Amino acid sequence: MLGLLLRESGETLIDQIVRSVAARIDDRLLRGGARMPSIRAFAASHSVSAFTVVAAYDKLVATGYLESRRGAGFFVRERPAMALNAADLGTGGGAFGGAGAGAASRGAQSGFDAKPIDVVWLVRNMFRQMPHQQMPGSGVLPPDWLDGPTIANALRAVSRQNPTLLLSYGVPQGFLPLRQQLQHKLAELEIAAAPEQIITTVGVTQALDLVAREFSRPGDTIFVDDPAWFLMFGSFAALGAKVVGIPRLGDGPDIARLAELAALHKPKLYIINSVLHNPSSTSLSAAKAFQVLRLAEEHDFIIVEDDIYCDLHPGSAVQPATRLSALDQLQRVIYLSGFSKTMAANLRVGFIATSPERAERLADRKMLSTLTTSDIGERVVYKVLSEGSYRKHADRLRARLDGLRAKTLRQMERVGLKVDGSPSAGMFVWADAGCDTNLLTERAMAHNLLLAPGSLFSPKQLPSTRMRLNVAAMQEPAVWRFLERELS
Amino acid sequence: MLGLLLRESGETLIDQIVRSVAARIDDRLLRGGARMPSIRAFAASHSVSAFTVVAAYDKLVATGYLESRRGAGFFVRERPAMALNAADLGTGGGAFGGAGAGAASRGAQSGFDAKPIDVVWLVRNMFRQMPHQQMPGSGVLPPDWLDGPTIANALRAVSRQNPTLLLSYGVPQGFLPLRQQLQHKLAELEIAAAPEQIITTVGVTQALDLVAREFSRPGDTIFVDDPAWFLMFGSFAALGAKVVGIPRLGDGPDIARLAELAALHKPKLYIINSVLHNPSSTSLSAAKAFQVLRLAEEHDFIIVEDDIYCDLHPGSAVQPATRLSALDQLQRVIYLSGFSKTMAANLRVGFIATSPERAERLADRKMLSTLTTSDIGERVVYKVLSEGSYRKHADRLRARLDGLRAKTLRQMERVGLKVDGSPSAGMFVWADAGCDTNLLTERAMAHNLLLAPGSLFSPKQLPSTRMRLNVAAMQEPAVWRFLERELS
Repeated sequence: MLGLLLRESGETLIDQIVRSVAARIDDRLLRGGARMPSIRAFAASHSVSAFTVVAAYDKLVATGYLESRRGAGFFVRERPAMALNAADLGTGGGAFGGAGAGAASRGAQSGFDAKPIDVVWLVRNMFRQMPHQQMPGSGVLPPDWLDGPTIANALRAVSRQNPTLLLSYGVPQGFLPLRQQLQHKLAELEIAAAPEQIITTVGVTQALDLVAREFSRPGDTIFVDDPAWFLMFGSFAALGAKVVGIPRLGDGPDIARLAELAALHKPKLYIINSVLHNPSSTSLSAAKAFQVLRLAEEHDFIIVEDDIYCDLHPGSAVQPATRLSALDQLQRVIYLSGFSKTMAANLRVGFIATSPERAERLADRKMLSTLTTSDIGERVVYKVLSEGSYRKHADRLRARLDGLRAKTLRQMERVGLKVDGSPSAGMFVWADAGCDTNLLTERAMAHNLLLAPGSLFSPKQLPSTRMRLNVAAMQEPAVWRFLERELS
Repeated sequence: MLGLLLRESGETLIDQIVRSVAARIDDRLLRGGARMPSIRAFAASHSVSAFTVVAAYDKLVATGYLESRRGAGFFVRERPAMALNAADLGTGGGAFGGAGAGAASRGAQSGFDAKPIDVVWLVRNMFRQMPHQQMPGSGVLPPDWLDGPTIANALRAVSRQNPTLLLSYGVPQGFLPLRQQLQHKLAELEIAAAPEQIITTVGVTQALDLVAREFSRPGDTIFVDDPAWFLMFGSFAALGAKVVGIPRLGDGPDIARLAELAALHKPKLYIINSVLHNPSSTSLSAAKAFQVLRLAEEHDFIIVEDDIYCDLHPGSAVQPATRLSALDQLQRVIYLSGFSKTMAANLRVGFIATSPERAERLADRKMLSTLTTSDIGERVVYKVLSEGSYRKHADRLRARLDGLRAKTLRQMERVGLKVDGSPSAGMFVWADAGCDTNLLTERAMAHNLLLAPGSLFSPKQLPSTRMRLNVAAMQEPAVWRFLERELS
């Protein structure tokens, strides 16, 4: 029923069962009212002890997923639908739900009790920690690619530091030695930023939230790329911003369209991945970078350069990469990055680099929203960065992606997925399946595979034949069998 | 110049020097352009090596506090004023700055280059980690009162867990075993909440921010107590909310006024400390609790019960304490608490308990603002709570506060500070100095003492003769000498 239980995964079997069952209930793969296998049957079919199953079922009852009916066994609890509807998302939220509602009604027609496909649904799925091999749409690298031992060593070192460090609040700007380390990291990208210009955040998510809250007001327009990282659409809509997409081409935004839309909407902010754009893994050309900056000046908007995939790029000496922050030196550009993708997501360490004046405003804003961030994760990142092994780790990640990319692209072509150009860095490929990927995603769910349909990356959630695929998560034959069958 | 350097503080001497000098520059106790002591002179006067001073000065140059002038030595860099002004705080921010601007002009008149006293100024000072003995206005217990070894042990245990746990994102609701533990903790307070009703947050600060963002819109009115915890005034004002204060009496809010203002403003939320109110350490009577709930029902507003001082109360068996959440069972009341005050602030672990439906909305809202919180702090809190030593630790904290309170209250009376009634739990005393405490706070700054003037706790920042004093931070003779001299 649940696929693999991994005895070496570092998680107890009980917790694995709890998580997997809960996930299937959340996905409505197990419907409300459904009867669970008996403890004996479950234990036998998964080769675990009855004790393990009892403990797992008890936890599932405690967390509201199952209910125990005396003498009759365990049943999936009936629960209300959980989709975040448009009304919850403030004035700009109307754009959501379209694709979701469509998917739901299609789901009902086909007799498949799917949850609506919407931003929140996909993001929730990203936290599912289902086996990475089943998540070709995943936004992260498989955990076993990351350097667990180094992170664990760094955390152990931090835990041996004087405990009084943990008892007081840190400073609102974040752990100073880390910010000093980041100064060096930015200098290598030709971005000059003193530690006082750097603010740590709870990942890039908080960085975007703080910047949007500080530099836009409800009703203002925020530009994003189209396609772009979906979570920020919800985040900005919740602030009452109007989210407008700028078509993204192979070498950056469609400049004519950007000029036109800027004149029309007078945006406050433009959020852009200049290097290794999510979902296409393409980067901004030097010429386009210059044009974007000129338009920002002309129409007086702030550029927010989200460089979260920075360390998956081999460097501008190897492949062209132009950072807006390097051209503009943090005058009109706010730089964001973090370590969730290449170091460890659970540390929740991101940062903002900006002008000293904006840094002060953002530090105050951070204080009002989370007071400070925890030093612990920041000390761990500092330790890893300052010990120097991180650079080699990033080299290894890139080499591993490079090793898989060509083969994966060939396989994609073979099953009928089209990819523009030939991506040469990053983990994502933005592929054209030639059919509505919302429908494809629903069918994948039934096979316990998680796809990331193009509609999610569209600021208007428009249905799309595109989807994002993760080169590092396409190694399972089941994925290819599914794609081959569906796309032939 | 800097007061004590503590060799056993777990922080390097270099970092201590950097922090102290930076703090004095931030406070304008060292003005822009001022010449720093020579390296030799500084080293001699603080009994540290010249190497230590060189390293500290270098860091201060790197962070923009000092500049080195060739051949002439080190100077404090000229910097723009850093006060957060009202315009930064959105539509509701106009209430700020009044007292601040006043203080600044008074400062200028008296030739004392003080920073304006405003919310942000005080909060920034709270992060100063100046010696606790110099912070009678502090909002936290001295770090040496907290259980550093237990926290460190728990962190070491977490660091020995399988490192892959750190590599992926946690779940948006927060670490499940902690939420299960919190279920038991809440049950002891007679509040029934399943783990699915509990969401972890980056301290109570994020909890308040998420709740206000989810359940109010710009222009809505939010009620707070008057006086109340100042940071939330800024946080709500930044959301565009109208912040209205309800006069707080010895046994809870002024009910007649609450009824009147509720009819007038139709508030969306009312934030209240029912147990050990900050800054007065008084608690809500049972009768008032019932009346507050009835008014909330009548005028249809949500009550947000901030119970951050929960564990400093000896329990309702010893002293009366009525929690609104216990009466209402999380129907109309949202419960918040956390571990920054009694366990360790730097873990940044707070939580929300609410109805299942609101919990889902808040989990989605959390996802949009920080994606997830880090498991690390949550695992540490879980470990400490589940090992059972925390209860004894909280007992010790209370006993220690009880031991100091009577003596401190007598000393207060002796120097001319009046206190209503006789506080019998908690760390705060809300004392009347009989003079404008903004002015008193400025004079205290010149003596390197941090007070918390009444204006800060007033939703309108009105000048006040009151101030908040922390029983645990009044043990230094210098504090009493200052108060005696100023108040006589």
